Amino acid sequence: MVGATDRGLAYGDGLFETVRFVGDGAPLWGRHMARLTAGCARLGLPAPDPARLLSEAREVAAGLPSAVVRITLTRGEGPRGYAPPAVVQPTRIVAAFAPSAPSVPAAREGIRVRTCALRLAAQPRLAGLKHLNRLEQVLARAEWDDPSIGEGLLLDAGGHVVSATMANLFAVIDGVLVTPRLDLCGVAGVARAEILATRAVDERPLTVAELATASEIFLTSGVRGIVPVRAWDEQCFAPGPVARELQRHWHALGFPPEEA
Amino acid sequence: MVGATDRGLAYGDGLFETVRFVGDGAPLWGRHMARLTAGCARLGLPAPDPARLLSEAREVAAGLPSAVVRITLTRGEGPRGYAPPAVVQPTRIVAAFAPSAPSVPAAREGIRVRTCALRLAAQPRLAGLKHLNRLEQVLARAEWDDPSIGEGLLLDAGGHVVSATMANLFAVIDGVLVTPRLDLCGVAGVARAEILATRAVDERPLTVAELATASEIFLTSGVRGIVPVRAWDEQCFAPGPVARELQRHWHALGFPPEEA
Repeated sequence: MVGATDRGLAYGDGLFETVRFVGDGAPLWGRHMARLTAGCARLGLPAPDPARLLSEAREVAAGLPSAVVRITLTRGEGPRGYAPPAVVQPTRIVAAFAPSAPSVPAAREGIRVRTCALRLAAQPRLAGLKHLNRLEQVLARAEWDDPSIGEGLLLDAGGHVVSATMANLFAVIDGVLVTPRLDLCGVAGVARAEILATRAVDERPLTVAELATASEIFLTSGVRGIVPVRAWDEQCFAPGPVARELQRHWHALGFPPEEA
Repeated sequence: MVGATDRGLAYGDGLFETVRFVGDGAPLWGRHMARLTAGCARLGLPAPDPARLLSEAREVAAGLPSAVVRITLTRGEGPRGYAPPAVVQPTRIVAAFAPSAPSVPAAREGIRVRTCALRLAAQPRLAGLKHLNRLEQVLARAEWDDPSIGEGLLLDAGGHVVSATMANLFAVIDGVLVTPRLDLCGVAGVARAEILATRAVDERPLTVAELATASEIFLTSGVRGIVPVRAWDEQCFAPGPVARELQRHWHALGFPPEEA
């Protein structure tokens, strides 16, 4: 339970991380902590102690062979009004969930995605952060309930492709691995950061028309791994060699193959 | 207390109203309920029963001669992920606060305002709503802590004036009462709605350059009433006749003059 006057609830004034644990280890823990720490700096929040968070995450995940641990950090309770309290006592919530059903077919065969009608707003001050203001994603995800559609692609107001609702997007275009730049909107995912750190990637604005020329498209998520796109609206794709190579990298990090 | 997996906390998936009560009455109650109901429709939330809310608000405000009642409505608890739960059981929080210190000098003499550096993002799907995604306002309000500055003006990315962080803005330009259109960003306040319903107002985009030519500027808020701007950055204004007339209207609605 959280206090009803917590600023996380009142204003979405905080950040979160969704960390995939395998046993008592989280292969991308360092990247999660790097993003959380950077987000705290941008929002003016005191950063939590990563060692303490890891111990708390292990505690809640104990007994689950595989878990998704959500860490939520808010600016804590405060008087009414937007002004940050003089003394901030952040609220920290660490909760473990069993992962959704195994996604073997998704990793092997790819998923179908649709283009969402909602356009992401450009807000450079919040771009990249995994903050608690997620109404855009809620509205976008509410656009479909066909269970055969695995994700929705989000464009910005200028018609550039940004990401999926819960994952980042990569495409191979003219033989080059491309991912949208996230300086105006979108969440800079930890799986995306892992790929940027280990592969040559062209990080740039990406139009819908360019994406249609891709030889392969895949989504990346710290929770769901590397997921090929086999259909985007009416256009079909085959899972390609770059996605397969990154899936092998993913397993080498410590994520079990049957769930990537 | 609220459940730690409430979607209001997880995603800011909800709405709020901040209602000024005078005794057991709220002069703008109908406008608050109209906005809340319209917001529920836009977010796909079941709308609450206004009669029940009023009874709950009166209950928490009982004993306070004057109160600010915050009503928060969220999509309730749900499984992890943006998809709305199949069955929504909204969370409803109704809490009373004593109003801030009396604002007689603010109403009489006006307040100083500054221009915030943060620019509001354009998101037509959320524009006008008093939703729980308020990180922009939090960041904007954190830009100053000089207590002599009463509010901050927010511009959009195109350089148009939208509102203050907690109030709407009106200006008299060439003898015409003008307020920014809120189809791309901003919160459509209940005091603003009251003025639009009772006065001829030109609702349109408003540039900074135009605002500088105003003969008077004032802010409006259901909680704080009609507040003249006496200085905007380096430019000074005198509280003008339109603000004075609207203050009289405000008192006629039932808000006590000493607090308008």
